[in-house]
Amino acid sequence: MEGDALEADDARSGDPQLPAPAPAGWSHRHLLDLDVLTWPDIELVMSTAEEMRDVLDRPIPKVPALRGMSATILFYEASTRTRVSFEVAAKNLSADVVNVAASTSSVSKGESLVDTVRTIDALGADILVIRHPTSGAPYLAAEVFGGHVINGGDGWHAHPTQALLDLFTMRQRLRGGSVAGRKVVILGDVLHSRVARSNIWSLTAAGADLWLCGPSTLLTGFEAWAASGGPAGRRFHVTSSIDDALRDADVVMALRLQRERMASGLLPSLREYAARFGLTAARLAAAAPDVLVMHPGPMNEGVEIAPEVAAGPHSVIADQVTNGVAIRMALLYLLAGGRGAAAPAP
Amino acid sequence: MEGDALEADDARSGDPQLPAPAPAGWSHRHLLDLDVLTWPDIELVMSTAEEMRDVLDRPIPKVPALRGMSATILFYEASTRTRVSFEVAAKNLSADVVNVAASTSSVSKGESLVDTVRTIDALGADILVIRHPTSGAPYLAAEVFGGHVINGGDGWHAHPTQALLDLFTMRQRLRGGSVAGRKVVILGDVLHSRVARSNIWSLTAAGADLWLCGPSTLLTGFEAWAASGGPAGRRFHVTSSIDDALRDADVVMALRLQRERMASGLLPSLREYAARFGLTAARLAAAAPDVLVMHPGPMNEGVEIAPEVAAGPHSVIADQVTNGVAIRMALLYLLAGGRGAAAPAP
Amino acid sequence: MEGDALEADDARSGDPQLPAPAPAGWSHRHLLDLDVLTWPDIELVMSTAEEMRDVLDRPIPKVPALRGMSATILFYEASTRTRVSFEVAAKNLSADVVNVAASTSSVSKGESLVDTVRTIDALGADILVIRHPTSGAPYLAAEVFGGHVINGGDGWHAHPTQALLDLFTMRQRLRGGSVAGRKVVILGDVLHSRVARSNIWSLTAAGADLWLCGPSTLLTGFEAWAASGGPAGRRFHVTSSIDDALRDADVVMALRLQRERMASGLLPSLREYAARFGLTAARLAAAAPDVLVMHPGPMNEGVEIAPEVAAGPHSVIADQVTNGVAIRMALLYLLAGGRGAAAPAP
Repeated sequence: MEGDALEADDARSGDPQLPAPAPAGWSHRHLLDLDVLTWPDIELVMSTAEEMRDVLDRPIPKVPALRGMSATILFYEASTRTRVSFEVAAKNLSADVVNVAASTSSVSKGESLVDTVRTIDALGADILVIRHPTSGAPYLAAEVFGGHVINGGDGWHAHPTQALLDLFTMRQRLRGGSVAGRKVVILGDVLHSRVARSNIWSLTAAGADLWLCGPSTLLTGFEAWAASGGPAGRRFHVTSSIDDALRDADVVMALRLQRERMASGLLPSLREYAARFGLTAARLAAAAPDVLVMHPGPMNEGVEIAPEVAAGPHSVIADQVTNGVAIRMALLYLLAGGRGAAAPAP
Repeated sequence: MEGDALEADDARSGDPQLPAPAPAGWSHRHLLDLDVLTWPDIELVMSTAEEMRDVLDRPIPKVPALRGMSATILFYEASTRTRVSFEVAAKNLSADVVNVAASTSSVSKGESLVDTVRTIDALGADILVIRHPTSGAPYLAAEVFGGHVINGGDGWHAHPTQALLDLFTMRQRLRGGSVAGRKVVILGDVLHSRVARSNIWSLTAAGADLWLCGPSTLLTGFEAWAASGGPAGRRFHVTSSIDDALRDADVVMALRLQRERMASGLLPSLREYAARFGLTAARLAAAAPDVLVMHPGPMNEGVEIAPEVAAGPHSVIADQVTNGVAIRMALLYLLAGGRGAAAPAP
Repeated sequence: MEGDALEADDARSGDPQLPAPAPAGWSHRHLLDLDVLTWPDIELVMSTAEEMRDVLDRPIPKVPALRGMSATILFYEASTRTRVSFEVAAKNLSADVVNVAASTSSVSKGESLVDTVRTIDALGADILVIRHPTSGAPYLAAEVFGGHVINGGDGWHAHPTQALLDLFTMRQRLRGGSVAGRKVVILGDVLHSRVARSNIWSLTAAGADLWLCGPSTLLTGFEAWAASGGPAGRRFHVTSSIDDALRDADVVMALRLQRERMASGLLPSLREYAARFGLTAARLAAAAPDVLVMHPGPMNEGVEIAPEVAAGPHSVIADQVTNGVAIRMALLYLLAGGRGAAAPAP
């Protein structure tokens, strides 16, 4: 072949800046769930995300840390927020991004997911972000993928990056910068929520006084879990009394109520749900004066949260979204930043 | 964090080339409709688009003007042409582009659009291009978005970038470089056309002798508007006589006839419409010898326009598409080019 | 316009590295089918793909060969594998990529495809990769597109990049590096397979001892073609005896069985098909000891191929995927690499 058109792209070669190896102390190849992270791991994610927030505040919020790496975002469920958040995070780190929107209709067996993941691996992806309606699917992906797998939400099981961005947002916005001993309420459809499950893990680990609140039909099993000790013996509260839950609360996180829950007979009507468990300004008055209002989005305004609360002075919902980019940049950097032969010579 | 992987991406820092501030005289943050543009504004768009056409003629049609900026293209209606045109325009200016294709089925209330736009803002987008089936939706988006909003078409209301590229194409291809006093015909389904509405504004402002022509059922309300003085008192003609309209016309712009108009009883049949209002070579013979044939696309060839006219010597339809990229580059540059702290130090 | 924001992007200008002109000897503007390639053309694709494999093995698998060029990937059929393969290949060569997923529902006439392709041309695309359910559609596209067209699969007609990556994989993995005289079996639904048709052309040209095997209802017409001499008088075998086909085979390529074949009455049941023609470990034992197992994907594991064979020691299915990126990089480079004014001055 003539010429030098196939010479190495030298924008990174010989540049001592990039990519730096990941910080010492990070030992995880994948992020599938929070339950394998130690507390120092979580602190490392938080401090790395703080650096990423600084990057986001620059005029050009881009760093070359993952230049030349390729991330594939494979989503088997519709998503704007989380999909775009990962895409922006990867591009901010200068990775190439490929989007694959898969319909579950074409996936009738577990083997097909494995086949798809093997293909993405062979196509050269270094990082796979996967969202799947089946709990555990990211574990299956991690078994066959040669690079790094990040769970972008699997069934009712886990949504670890959401819980990390929630924790980051609370620490950033709570006085004192810690959730230890603070009363945090997760309100609504806990039963079907991977966001709730992941937050139970991280918030009890962080020492929060955690309360789950909702109709009893949407808390099935959680009371027994709480009674038997909670995750790793860390306790939390379960109640259907929204008054008990909100009283002096430091943080209230409303969960999305999916309308299909009505069809399954778990709830009588949206109207009744909103009347009994909707987060209104009147109810919020019982919480601490500087309570934080959170929501993982997308919101059903007027159902689980009143519009004036969502847009009110206590709301940190937009911070959650921005912090989501920072958290995902931090995780991508920790997982993949030190990988590959492009690390600088010692 | 070790190393310098998070140092500023220096491909732009210290480079005096980029981005230059937007030209003096441009004062608009958004482009939602043409009615707020002054004539000098429109001239500035035209002259900037001419520079962008020069960029497009280069071997590498890219400039770094928006490097480090992020544009999100949020389309609630299917579109290839306009969506890709904005994507190419933004990439030619070195912006990062995120595509979000939203189905209206997930948007049952105005609040949901607001929630989506707030999220895109919090995800770090600097520019939002929105297409929505509801007239006025871009105004709602602009109320909550922190950056720049461009209307990519809203309901029947407006399609300002289309009208600007149409005007640019006419000036480029008409002898004398001006539409003032030239007979311009918009032919077809004027009633449902945001393209027509935006062109009425810009073409009357430019002093064209504007004629709207179509079946009376597809002109409802326009005759009254014309009789009452037209936009800002600028007059235009309305007729159902295609002979009157085409006689000595300098420009004929055929509009797409949407097949669902038949179902609503506004037209008897496609065949009859094509027979009475289709732009054929025979009819075009009545126009000026160097008449320009335009169409915003996509075309129903054989319905509103005959294939041999669409591909014939008078057609400037391909120019419209290429000029669309130049116009959108110009608007992106004018709206966002001078923004941010990356402007060169004085 | 003030400043220099519209100066040429100088990352490539003045750089003698890129893009080099395409190698001497390549004279094709498009790749629509294999039947116009000479054997030296194919050898040139193979040797170029070897260089691309070397690029893929680098820490940063990117070269600037097509920097500033724009590739549009227009797929009228669902595809993950081939679409992403082209996207990764083009990005590895530093081209910009635009994805357009078209539904055939919006394409009721050939004119619409032409209109779409003309639009993509006018939007500035240099390269068009098209997949379409209608055989011959890429030829129609090539008639109106100003740049380079690559057939990404058209109806039952051809899938030339797949056949080239299959040939490359065989030469890479067969002892001796040649398919000449080696027994190659294509197994399954030959009738509906563009992969089979393209492979018949290239494998007979390469001198393979080619066998097509499947139920007689899925071989209709191929026996007559074989009897009448095969492509360009090059012979191949057709049989419904899987024992005859697999005996001492050097390569077995199983084809995807599309489930809708059952509905059309061509097959009694998936179960019976799997029992009679599924590629199992027991059957594979009759092949040569170092037989290669191939599949174009996506697989119906348990139907045309047993999971343990797909993932077994003879499988080179993952190599096919990776080689697909290298082959597509080679073709993009050969077709477009020397084009444009950016070639270095002599």
